[in-house]
Amino acid sequence: MEKLSEQILYQVIKNRANDSHKGTYGRVLIIGGTKQFGGAVIMNALAAVNSGAGLVTVATDPINFTAIHSHLPETMVMDFNDDLTHAIQASDVILIGSGLGDRLDIVKHTFSAVFAKQILIVDGSALTLVAEHHLPWPKSRLILTPHQMEWQRLSGVSVEQQSFEAFNILAREKFIQKPIIVLKQFHTQVYTNKGIYELPIGGPYQATGGMGDTLAGIIAGFAAQFLLTPLIDTTLAAVYSHSAIADELAHTQYVTLPTQISAALPRFMKRYAN
Amino acid sequence: MEKLSEQILYQVIKNRANDSHKGTYGRVLIIGGTKQFGGAVIMNALAAVNSGAGLVTVATDPINFTAIHSHLPETMVMDFNDDLTHAIQASDVILIGSGLGDRLDIVKHTFSAVFAKQILIVDGSALTLVAEHHLPWPKSRLILTPHQMEWQRLSGVSVEQQSFEAFNILAREKFIQKPIIVLKQFHTQVYTNKGIYELPIGGPYQATGGMGDTLAGIIAGFAAQFLLTPLIDTTLAAVYSHSAIADELAHTQYVTLPTQISAALPRFMKRYAN
Amino acid sequence: MEKLSEQILYQVIKNRANDSHKGTYGRVLIIGGTKQFGGAVIMNALAAVNSGAGLVTVATDPINFTAIHSHLPETMVMDFNDDLTHAIQASDVILIGSGLGDRLDIVKHTFSAVFAKQILIVDGSALTLVAEHHLPWPKSRLILTPHQMEWQRLSGVSVEQQSFEAFNILAREKFIQKPIIVLKQFHTQVYTNKGIYELPIGGPYQATGGMGDTLAGIIAGFAAQFLLTPLIDTTLAAVYSHSAIADELAHTQYVTLPTQISAALPRFMKRYAN
Amino acid sequence: MEKLSEQILYQVIKNRANDSHKGTYGRVLIIGGTKQFGGAVIMNALAAVNSGAGLVTVATDPINFTAIHSHLPETMVMDFNDDLTHAIQASDVILIGSGLGDRLDIVKHTFSAVFAKQILIVDGSALTLVAEHHLPWPKSRLILTPHQMEWQRLSGVSVEQQSFEAFNILAREKFIQKPIIVLKQFHTQVYTNKGIYELPIGGPYQATGGMGDTLAGIIAGFAAQFLLTPLIDTTLAAVYSHSAIADELAHTQYVTLPTQISAALPRFMKRYAN
Repeated sequence: MEKLSEQILYQVIKNRANDSHKGTYGRVLIIGGTKQFGGAVIMNALAAVNSGAGLVTVATDPINFTAIHSHLPETMVMDFNDDLTHAIQASDVILIGSGLGDRLDIVKHTFSAVFAKQILIVDGSALTLVAEHHLPWPKSRLILTPHQMEWQRLSGVSVEQQSFEAFNILAREKFIQKPIIVLKQFHTQVYTNKGIYELPIGGPYQATGGMGDTLAGIIAGFAAQFLLTPLIDTTLAAVYSHSAIADELAHTQYVTLPTQISAALPRFMKRYAN
Repeated sequence: MEKLSEQILYQVIKNRANDSHKGTYGRVLIIGGTKQFGGAVIMNALAAVNSGAGLVTVATDPINFTAIHSHLPETMVMDFNDDLTHAIQASDVILIGSGLGDRLDIVKHTFSAVFAKQILIVDGSALTLVAEHHLPWPKSRLILTPHQMEWQRLSGVSVEQQSFEAFNILAREKFIQKPIIVLKQFHTQVYTNKGIYELPIGGPYQATGGMGDTLAGIIAGFAAQFLLTPLIDTTLAAVYSHSAIADELAHTQYVTLPTQISAALPRFMKRYAN
Repeated sequence: MEKLSEQILYQVIKNRANDSHKGTYGRVLIIGGTKQFGGAVIMNALAAVNSGAGLVTVATDPINFTAIHSHLPETMVMDFNDDLTHAIQASDVILIGSGLGDRLDIVKHTFSAVFAKQILIVDGSALTLVAEHHLPWPKSRLILTPHQMEWQRLSGVSVEQQSFEAFNILAREKFIQKPIIVLKQFHTQVYTNKGIYELPIGGPYQATGGMGDTLAGIIAGFAAQFLLTPLIDTTLAAVYSHSAIADELAHTQYVTLPTQISAALPRFMKRYAN
Repeated sequence: MEKLSEQILYQVIKNRANDSHKGTYGRVLIIGGTKQFGGAVIMNALAAVNSGAGLVTVATDPINFTAIHSHLPETMVMDFNDDLTHAIQASDVILIGSGLGDRLDIVKHTFSAVFAKQILIVDGSALTLVAEHHLPWPKSRLILTPHQMEWQRLSGVSVEQQSFEAFNILAREKFIQKPIIVLKQFHTQVYTNKGIYELPIGGPYQATGGMGDTLAGIIAGFAAQFLLTPLIDTTLAAVYSHSAIADELAHTQYVTLPTQISAALPRFMKRYAN
């Protein structure tokens, strides 16, 4: 198991080419946020936009449109009850599941609509729905972001026994492409087909609702804008950034709110750009 | 009567264990906010989240959902006209009454649904409804946060004669468990079965609408995350923090707004964590 | 004509008594904000709350509730289509007219409901409605805040000829109590039964939509909380504060937004409190 | 081709006359923002208000009213499905097209309602609709703000061949008055009947959704308040300000958000006012 260091940030966060435009930095589609859990997609989007994604659209319950735009006029919105096929297929990165509740229909539709070359991040409620309904995984490139209980439901391996072996078994059997699995815990681990990586930073000041939604949004933002970088590296850099910012905030704060981490991204990333 | 000092903060605000997650810091359910008084639950929630509660849900009139999420995507929301039984019983701390108006039905239902081990904070309109309708107190652990007129309505003892004796009489007769009573006034007093405590700090710059809603939210946030600390101590620490922050803001401000106090919580708490 | 100086601030902004509560600082009712002009009451309320009013309620079109609470959970809201009699009569200060559009019915009702001892501030659309419909003035204490065109419509005296004489004629004939008239212009003038006062500060960086709504809100906030100070003095102090803050902001800004002036009030007032 | 320098700012940004009021600084009407793209008009309006326009009204889908007022109570709103004739004709500057989607009817109506002396800025979706439906240009003074693909659709000249010649051909044939064309790209070019200007500043940190909506809003704000300055100069100053602020923010940020640029306008402009 390899320990991550800030070296991964220098590898991934590159100065942008002059001859680029917002299309260069990718289209992100965020799908989530029922009436009750709309905050989750707001946090997804704040993270994706502040990390530098080119264009971000949120497909959600319409009740959430106004709160999203109150935070972020920079995003577009759409009703997740409408047909999402075109929006999905026009995106580089799709993030599904934060605050998605029991909307199995939307997970199924998204899984059937994605192409093999697209990046699909599966978070939160969508992971639980996959586990409960034994949904087959889609053919796309996959990043899963379970916490330990969600991973137990998905893998059938108890929290105590979660290990690289369990991942291998699951990966061999169920996935068309090998996924990247971000197993959220104290010292988060990232399982990939290149090896396992452990995050030596972060702390319990991050133990507050919405922290995972923010992480998923940073992963989406990094994947979209650093499309030519290996996806494992961009994911690792996103995971590292999320906790490194929290660590910095925690020098002066007892808890670190998810929205504060997103707000700190532009300045944080600048320090590593090269 | 014992005078509180910042010593109570050192006793209560402990560094968090590495091996913890948002569930460790408790689930808070806030119930309040009619169409007219939605701001009250926003202030409850800002205080609870910024003080470090693990997960915060607001049950309120749906008209308030968007404003809540505009302030705090970190919270979940639900319609307080729906059946709250499950949400109540899944929570560690329930705060009811800020901006609840005349919703006697919701108070009654909440009082009947809570378990003996849960912490129920009763604030604002809910206190008036209890007094007016002679509602029996529930069997849960109780914290009441009346201002002097609400306490007069509840206890039948006039503002001039409010004293420890009055509290004892009320407590013996009406409560299953001895409550903690936070009697809000200039130099707030906290009545407990261990004694009476007086807050020697705070000032008239706090005399502005919503200040009590913020206090109730801090009490909820502290109770939820410091679940293993005696509830009297966490309540005293919350009361102390609320006014200590106001005092600091008042060095440079003529009035201190409730939302500013919540925003200052993470940095304030950090200074006392040990 | 007397030139105002910051001396008026020292006269009015007094340290608060310890033995005071939010009721001590007055109840303000703001009436305005049709569907199209909701921003006006938001700016009224931001000014009133930040200047230190005890309790602020906004009676407005319900479409504005969420935006108000997004800015200010510290306020209460009500539908201005409901019967406002009780709300009006329970208030110390009523501010009517900012963004009120053509709601003559609401102006009429308010004028008929106020008591002689209450303070009524009439702003914006309400002034135009009074002029157009030759409404009789109510019996309450009155503060009018016209700009020059509104004053021309009200007084029948053209902008070029506006003078103390014109005021005297109008005042003798139409008002039950002598009003205070804040005639907004470059170097705003305040007409009172004690004399005329001129504001020697302020500048064209204030020439932006909403500036008058903010001024009306500060007048309301000062009148409510300094209830025992002569109303002429509190009005003069409010007028002075509004432009003094703008002047300070203008050291570093080309234009000064109304919402920035409100946000600066607590710190500004602290410097003069004595 | 002339390279722009900050000299253009000293030419355009003049200290305001004392004897001026909000009417002096122009009325801006922003038309755009369907249900899905409401953020675009929020960014238009933030830019127009912060750059110093006197009065700003947003005609948009009513779903966007609350989010607009959450950002900017300083603006007025109206339903873009209502008859806009009066609002258009009462404005000094009309900005149409940001997030307007497929609302061809609104473009047509606006084009037919404007007068020859009014300034009409055509952005985003409106440019695409003009190209797709071969709409005749209106008789007003025109500023077009296409990115390269939109310009290709409008002019029929491919991105590779875009040049002054192409502009001349288009201009001769299709426009009643010679328009100003702001061709957005790395080193944006501005085509005018006085010559072509190139912006030597700006960078890829601006490659994020909403950047163009903010530019259009600054152009509108400058055109409205500097009505007596030649429109070419005000447009050039707006284009320069937009990227100069982004460059400054980029010293410490990896990406620069559109809303941050608007927030920085008042301080930026102050440095050049003379």
